[in-house]
Amino acid sequence: MEPRVGIVGGGQLGRMLALAAAPLGVGVTVLDPSPDAGAGVAARQIIGAFDDVEALRLLASGSDVVTFEFENVAASAIESAALDCRLAPPATAMAASQDRVGEKQLFTRLAIETTPYAAVESADSLRSAAAALALPAILKTRRLGYDGKGQMSIDSKSDLDAAWQGVGGSPSILEARVEFDRELSIVAVRSADGETVFYPLTENRHEHGILRETRAPATTEAAVEETARRYAGALLDELGYVGVLALELFETGGRLLANEFAPRVHNSGHWTIEGAETSQFENHIRAITGLPLGSTFAPRPVAMLNLIGEAPAREQILGVEGAHLHLYGKEPRPGRKVGHVTVVAEDSATLDKRLARLRPIVENASQ
Amino acid sequence: MEPRVGIVGGGQLGRMLALAAAPLGVGVTVLDPSPDAGAGVAARQIIGAFDDVEALRLLASGSDVVTFEFENVAASAIESAALDCRLAPPATAMAASQDRVGEKQLFTRLAIETTPYAAVESADSLRSAAAALALPAILKTRRLGYDGKGQMSIDSKSDLDAAWQGVGGSPSILEARVEFDRELSIVAVRSADGETVFYPLTENRHEHGILRETRAPATTEAAVEETARRYAGALLDELGYVGVLALELFETGGRLLANEFAPRVHNSGHWTIEGAETSQFENHIRAITGLPLGSTFAPRPVAMLNLIGEAPAREQILGVEGAHLHLYGKEPRPGRKVGHVTVVAEDSATLDKRLARLRPIVENASQ
Repeated sequence: MEPRVGIVGGGQLGRMLALAAAPLGVGVTVLDPSPDAGAGVAARQIIGAFDDVEALRLLASGSDVVTFEFENVAASAIESAALDCRLAPPATAMAASQDRVGEKQLFTRLAIETTPYAAVESADSLRSAAAALALPAILKTRRLGYDGKGQMSIDSKSDLDAAWQGVGGSPSILEARVEFDRELSIVAVRSADGETVFYPLTENRHEHGILRETRAPATTEAAVEETARRYAGALLDELGYVGVLALELFETGGRLLANEFAPRVHNSGHWTIEGAETSQFENHIRAITGLPLGSTFAPRPVAMLNLIGEAPAREQILGVEGAHLHLYGKEPRPGRKVGHVTVVAEDSATLDKRLARLRPIVENASQ
Repeated sequence: MEPRVGIVGGGQLGRMLALAAAPLGVGVTVLDPSPDAGAGVAARQIIGAFDDVEALRLLASGSDVVTFEFENVAASAIESAALDCRLAPPATAMAASQDRVGEKQLFTRLAIETTPYAAVESADSLRSAAAALALPAILKTRRLGYDGKGQMSIDSKSDLDAAWQGVGGSPSILEARVEFDRELSIVAVRSADGETVFYPLTENRHEHGILRETRAPATTEAAVEETARRYAGALLDELGYVGVLALELFETGGRLLANEFAPRVHNSGHWTIEGAETSQFENHIRAITGLPLGSTFAPRPVAMLNLIGEAPAREQILGVEGAHLHLYGKEPRPGRKVGHVTVVAEDSATLDKRLARLRPIVENASQ
């Protein structure tokens, strides 16, 4: 019998997972409220809300394993799916990533350096946290926002009240704003029997909290790469993790500070489709269906540009040598990720030239 | 609007075309009589016979361009689709590949060396052809068989009558059986504006007329590679071709003899999914939808093994480093291609070792 994977969420991550599952002979069903969900192109679909217990149990009953396209799924919903089938990653990993304070405490427990932080429960505790950490800082809700939503910048004491209102007065975390040299991330995969593989470190550039561009392998010292692997490996093992996990990092003066982890395939790993021997999507499917993992080797330098709001004409993108297009089947909308472009080259200088041609094409179309 | 491609045939080639089309934002509809057609995983489907004129016109009316998974489609059917939309490759290319005598004459006209041959219309003309060519030879129906069907080996004069009966007394071609050093093929792509790209020469091993194994890039002299490109390029230009074409070749003492061409993506190009920067499937979709072609660069040695009859357990295949699995969603059946395995390596010696591990796994399962 063909193994079947259920995915909570049928957007671009579900779509790329489904496209990677088909060649492995693995069937996919997604749960998504939109009848036009992008994953529908290569998956069966249950149309329903992500927290619809009946829909989740239907998904689980027809699947050998259920996985997630995003991490902010209600714990009660996760539990109801878990009644009927195996979850990968495990519910504990989902829970750990949903509470920013718990996540930081987990980092600390595993000797993963992170940014200074304090839990905030009230306007008063915000004031004392700000005094203890020193400003500037960022106030974030403890529960997850997405793509920079639910985050307030605090530059001086006069911003404190507005920030507290900005997070709706809900339990939050205050994080010191770290002056970093660059943002990195590492995508790691753990199989059901504990085998762990790592993709090369990736350098990321965000704008307004949305990932714009990544480049891999990041040029870095071996010690930095090793630290990133130690961090990600510790998380995977501690959580008894199965599947792909991405860890976002700040590099500052040769140190790596963990920012947050995502218990899923990650935008900063999209370059692996063309850039690595086995994509993060295929390796996630392999891991959660109990198959051996594929090589994460990246033979050539590669970069990825997100298409935000609106995609440029296909011809323009593909007219640049080494460019590969991934559209997500979404209607254009300002701020929405509608696709990405991967560009590969034989060497870093050639990659720079191709990126210089691609960036204006991508930016002119984006909103 | 999303461009739509119609494919006559929804088997493994249609499936891999559909999986390659999705990231480009190109929708696919296949026409196939089986409700379980493998391409259905990533395509809409019209259930109907390949020569059902009404079904073909329905396919064409909902598509910007219609293409083909196999070449033995009745000319009348092709014409009926062409009434409603563009065909790629053009009908002339389909027709040229359907008549083995016409194909050989085309080769000769384009200065493409080929095996000695003679047209056969009767038992008498078979006898005179056999005398002229010298035996051993192969008698094939002029119209297409598939995977070695409709072919009769003739070792001596005493085989002539049985051979003539074997082809059902239908118009045929007698081809000298050439002693060749090895079988090669070249996969080439031509875009709508005449840009042409070539994949590296591939070495193929057939058994009983079915492709078992390919390896690329074939180690060969530059002059041989150049000859193959000249042959394929001449065909593409002569036919005003758009899309992927594969040319099968015999290498004998440094000479290349054209055996036959296929006006479609080809089994000997399946290695391009992991082995080349752009797969033959993506480049076919790019070509027929008017997009610029992608790079055919193959950075590392690669091989492909067909899974015939029954696929081995996924775990066995993927337990070999560098192995990638492609299942076609077909029920096992003796002699049926149910999937393929691609294996990549950093060098040729490592590839040999991995192949040595894979072959027994593949052969033990196959029927």
